Amino acid sequence: MKILQGIAASSGISMAKAYRLIEPDLTFEKQKIEDVDAETLRLDESITASIRELEAIQQNAEKELGGDEAAIFNAHILVLKDPELIGPIKEKIRTDKVNAEHALKETTDMFIAMFESMDNEYMRERAADIRDVTKRVLSHLLGVKAASPSTISEEVIIIADDLTPSDTAQLNRKFVKAFATDIGGRTSHSAIMARSLEIPAVVGTKEATQHIQDGDFVIVDGMEGTLIVNPTEEVIAEYREAQQKFAEQKAEWAKLVDEKTVSLDGKHVELAANIGTPDDLDGVKANGGEGIGLYRTEFLYMGRDQLPTEEEQFEAYKKVLEGMDGKPVIVRTLDIGGDKELPYLELPEELNPFLGFRAIRLCLEEQEIFRTQLRALLRASIYGNLKIMFPMIATLQEFRQAKAILEEEKDSLMKAGEKVADHIELGIMVEIPSTAVMADQFAKEVDFFSIGTNDLIQYTMAADRMNERVSYLYQPYNPAILRLVKNVIDASHREGKWTGMCGEMAGDELAIPLLLGLGLDEFSMSATSILRARSQIRNLSKLEMEKLAEKALELGTAEEVVQLVKETLSE
Amino acid sequence: MKILQGIAASSGISMAKAYRLIEPDLTFEKQKIEDVDAETLRLDESITASIRELEAIQQNAEKELGGDEAAIFNAHILVLKDPELIGPIKEKIRTDKVNAEHALKETTDMFIAMFESMDNEYMRERAADIRDVTKRVLSHLLGVKAASPSTISEEVIIIADDLTPSDTAQLNRKFVKAFATDIGGRTSHSAIMARSLEIPAVVGTKEATQHIQDGDFVIVDGMEGTLIVNPTEEVIAEYREAQQKFAEQKAEWAKLVDEKTVSLDGKHVELAANIGTPDDLDGVKANGGEGIGLYRTEFLYMGRDQLPTEEEQFEAYKKVLEGMDGKPVIVRTLDIGGDKELPYLELPEELNPFLGFRAIRLCLEEQEIFRTQLRALLRASIYGNLKIMFPMIATLQEFRQAKAILEEEKDSLMKAGEKVADHIELGIMVEIPSTAVMADQFAKEVDFFSIGTNDLIQYTMAADRMNERVSYLYQPYNPAILRLVKNVIDASHREGKWTGMCGEMAGDELAIPLLLGLGLDEFSMSATSILRARSQIRNLSKLEMEKLAEKALELGTAEEVVQLVKETLSE
Repeated sequence: MKILQGIAASSGISMAKAYRLIEPDLTFEKQKIEDVDAETLRLDESITASIRELEAIQQNAEKELGGDEAAIFNAHILVLKDPELIGPIKEKIRTDKVNAEHALKETTDMFIAMFESMDNEYMRERAADIRDVTKRVLSHLLGVKAASPSTISEEVIIIADDLTPSDTAQLNRKFVKAFATDIGGRTSHSAIMARSLEIPAVVGTKEATQHIQDGDFVIVDGMEGTLIVNPTEEVIAEYREAQQKFAEQKAEWAKLVDEKTVSLDGKHVELAANIGTPDDLDGVKANGGEGIGLYRTEFLYMGRDQLPTEEEQFEAYKKVLEGMDGKPVIVRTLDIGGDKELPYLELPEELNPFLGFRAIRLCLEEQEIFRTQLRALLRASIYGNLKIMFPMIATLQEFRQAKAILEEEKDSLMKAGEKVADHIELGIMVEIPSTAVMADQFAKEVDFFSIGTNDLIQYTMAADRMNERVSYLYQPYNPAILRLVKNVIDASHREGKWTGMCGEMAGDELAIPLLLGLGLDEFSMSATSILRARSQIRNLSKLEMEKLAEKALELGTAEEVVQLVKETLSE
Repeated sequence: MKILQGIAASSGISMAKAYRLIEPDLTFEKQKIEDVDAETLRLDESITASIRELEAIQQNAEKELGGDEAAIFNAHILVLKDPELIGPIKEKIRTDKVNAEHALKETTDMFIAMFESMDNEYMRERAADIRDVTKRVLSHLLGVKAASPSTISEEVIIIADDLTPSDTAQLNRKFVKAFATDIGGRTSHSAIMARSLEIPAVVGTKEATQHIQDGDFVIVDGMEGTLIVNPTEEVIAEYREAQQKFAEQKAEWAKLVDEKTVSLDGKHVELAANIGTPDDLDGVKANGGEGIGLYRTEFLYMGRDQLPTEEEQFEAYKKVLEGMDGKPVIVRTLDIGGDKELPYLELPEELNPFLGFRAIRLCLEEQEIFRTQLRALLRASIYGNLKIMFPMIATLQEFRQAKAILEEEKDSLMKAGEKVADHIELGIMVEIPSTAVMADQFAKEVDFFSIGTNDLIQYTMAADRMNERVSYLYQPYNPAILRLVKNVIDASHREGKWTGMCGEMAGDELAIPLLLGLGLDEFSMSATSILRARSQIRNLSKLEMEKLAEKALELGTAEEVVQLVKETLSE
C-alpha cells in the first residue's frame, strides 16, 4: 500500500483499477519501399480509421459536454480530409519511395513549422491540430494502441500526467470513476471539468504516474486529496464506509433542492450558479440554484470563425431567461482577451495578456461588438429577470462609459419600438484591486457588485494563477483578500446595494464560513456545489461567523486563517 | 506654424533644426555577378566600415552612458568578426555568383530564423543582434546613409517614431538639444534616458514624424509636452524668454545643493537618488542627494555571461557605501525575472512574466545566488550606512524566510571572523497590492517600507505599463493608489517606522504635494530631479498638503485628483 497526497479537486470517493493514460511510443525508422500503391493504401486505411475514431469521440463529446467542446474534433476531421495536406504526403511516398510514417511526419512537420512561425494565434492553433492528428494517424500506422479514454469499457480510474481538453472530452462517465494527475491545481482545466462531470479527482500529485501501474487498485479521495495505491482490505473497508457516508450525505443534500438557504440564526443568502451555455440550466435546476450568478457569454463567441449575430445572441439569452422562470440571471458582457482569444478578432500579441487589452477594455474600443451584445441583451430582457454586469472594470470612467453606451442602445431600441424591461440592474465584476479599494465610490453608481476572486487574487498577489512556479501565492485565504472582500461588501451595504461572488472561492467549504461572516449576499458557484453549500450554511450561525471573520482579518498569513477556520468548524 | 501635443517626458525648452531619425530604404535587387573577388571585397569593405562605426558608437556610449549600455555594441562587433557567419556569406557569393547584398541577406535571414526558433531568450537576442548588424552592413553596401545620431555635427532636435536603447546610446549631448517621438509614455525607455541625459523631451506625440521635415525649425517644451513646428518670430521670442527663465530657475535650484529639504512649516523629508552602478554617485553628489533610496543591483548581473562573484559584488557595494560618506544607502536585493532576464540563468518562459517567477520569488528558490549577494552586502556593511530591502514581497512568510536567510549568513560570517555592521535596517519594497493592504502586519516586523509605484500601479490597475493599448490605466493619481500609499505610510508611523518611495512618482511635480501631505518620509528619484523637488517642497506647507491629500482620497477619479492638485498649486 502506498499513499500519495495531491490537491483535492472534485469531491467524492471512488475505487477501481488504474488506467494509465500515457502518450504511446511513436518512434519509427525511415525505410525505402518498393510498392508505392501498397504504402499509399496503408496511409489511406490509417486515415480512415482515424476519422472513424474522431467521429466517435466527437459524438461522445457532444453528448457529454456540448457543442463547444466537440468542435475541436470536427477541426481534426477536416484536417484529415484536406487534400492540400494529404496530397503532398502521397506525393512524397511516390517520389521518394519512403514508408508512409516518414512521408507523413516529414510533410506535417513542414506544415507545423510553417503555421507556427506565423504571427497569428489562429494559424498556431492549426499547427496544434495538425500535431494532434499526426499522432493519431501515426499510432494507426504503427499499430500502437493510442491510450484513448474513449475506448475504455470497464470501470477505471484514470492516471495521467495531465488531462487535456481533448482527453476530458472523451471520458465516459459510465466507466471513468475518478482521475488523478501529476500536475494542475484547483482551478486548472481538468479540476473544473471533474467538478462539472461530478467525478472525484485529485490533481497535482506530482508522482502518480511514477508509482501507479496499469491494473493497480486505486482509491481516490477527492475530499482529502489522497490517492491510495493497492490498499489493504482494512483500508478498502474503511473507504467503502466513507463512500457510503458520502452517498448518504449527497442524498441528504438532495432533499434541500427546494429549500431556502438560511443560516441557523435566520440570515438568508442566495446560492446561484455559474453557467456557460443554455444547456447548463438542467444542472442548475437539478441542484436547486436560486439564480444564475454568472452567465459567461464568451462561449457564444468561441469555437467559430466569426462573431455571433445579434439574433443568435438574443435567442441564447432569451432561452436562459425563460428557463430560469423569473429567477435572477446575471449576464457578464464579453470577457475576451487575456488567455481567452478569438482567432477571428486578430488581437495583437501581448507580453502580459493577463494585464492587457481584454474584457471591458476591448469592448469600449471595439464598440460594435459591445453594442451588438447589449442590444441582444436588452431585447431579451423582457423574458425574465435580467441583470447585466461588466467585467474587468478598473476605474469609474470605464463604468460610466459602458453605462452610457448601454443607455444609448436602450434609447435607440425603444425609439425603434422594441420592448425593453423597465429596470435592469447594472453591476460590475470586482476583480481588480483598484476597484476593490474604491468600492465606496463605485457603490454610489452601480446596482450591485460581483467579486471575481480568481482574478482578484492573482492581481492582488501579483501571481499568475496558471504559473506553477508562483502557485504558492494564489492564496484565497490571505487576509489581504479577505480585507478587500470586506471593503467591497461594506461599501455596497452602506449604499443599500448588494454584493455577490462568482469566483471559485464562493463554493469553497473553508471560505463559505468567512464569506457568510463578512456579509456576502450572493454566492455563485458550479451547480454541483450548491447543495453542499446550502447544507453547510444551514448549519452555521451568521453571528458566530462574523466573529470568526473579524478575527481572520487581523491575522498575518493565509495559513493562520485556514488554521482558525478549521478549528472553529471542528468546535 | 503648427503645434503638436505630446507627453512631457523631460524638463526644459530647446529650439533647433529638426533631424528625422527614420529607417533608411534598404531594398535591393538580386543580381548575378561575374567578378567574385570584387564582390567579396565590397563585402569586406562594408564590414570594416560597419565595425569602425560601431567602435565609435561604443566609445561614445561608454563615455555618456557607462559600460552596461555600451556592451550591446561590442556584441555587434563580435557578430561582424564571426567567421561562422561571414564565411557562409562569402561562400554564397562564390558559389551562386550573386551580389553581396543578396548573399548577406539570404545568409543572415537563415541564421535569424534559426536563432529565433530556439526556445531560449539568449538565442533570440542573438537573432536581434544579427538583424541590427545586417541593416548596418546593408546600408554601407547600398551607400545609403543610415540615419545615425552618432554622425550629427550640428545642433538638432531629433524627431523619431521611437528611440531604441541603441539610438539613445548614440546621442551626443553637445549636438542633440532635445527629442520628440511618436510613441512612448513617461516611463518608457526613451523618456527615462532623456531625464538622465538632462535634455528636454516630448514623447507620444502620435504624429511628429508625419508633420515635421528635416530642417524644419522646432521648439520642444518638455514641461508642457508641446512641440511647435516652424514658429513665428513672436513665438520664438516668447520661448526664448521661457528658456531664459528655466535656466535662471535651474541656477536658483543649484544653490540648494547643500540645503536640507524642509517644508515651509518646518517638516524635514529626505531626498534620495535611484542609482544603477557606482558610476552614478557623481551625479548624486552634484545634485545634492541626501542618500541612495534605491541601488538597483541588477546591473551587476547584466551584460555578462555568468553570475558576478561575491568579491565583485563586495567591491561594488563597498564603493557605493564609501562614496556616500555615511549617508544612507538602500540596496535592493536582486530583482531579476519579469522583463529583466539573465541569459545565463535559463529561466523558463512565462505567459505573464510580470506576474511570474521573479525577484524575491526567484531568490528564495535559487538560494545560492541570494546568499552570495547577502554575504557581499554584509561584508560591505562596515564601510557606510547600509540598509537592505527585498523586492516583490507579497506575503509575511516570504519576508520571514528572506530575513532568516540573511541572519544565517550573518551568523556564519561572524563565526568565520568577518566584521559585519551591528545594525543593518531591513525593509521591503511595497509594490504588490496584498502587501500594501497588509502594511499594518508587515510594519511590526520590518524596519522600513519603500513603495515601488511603477509596479504597485500596474498590479493595482491590472494593466501592463509597457502595453500601449492599456496605458490609459497607468494612473499614479488614481485615488486607489493614493489610498494604498496612505495605508502604508500610516501603518509604518503607528509602529515607529518610516516609509520611502522609489518609483517614478516620487519625483513627479504633481505627486510631490500629495505625498508630502500623506506623510511620506523619503523621496527617491533620478538624481537630476532632486534639486527641483527640493525647491518645490521648500515652498509647500505640510499642513496645507495634508488637507489637499485628505480631499484627494475622497475623489472618484485620477482626473479629479490632477484637477484638484493643479488648482491648489496655482492658488
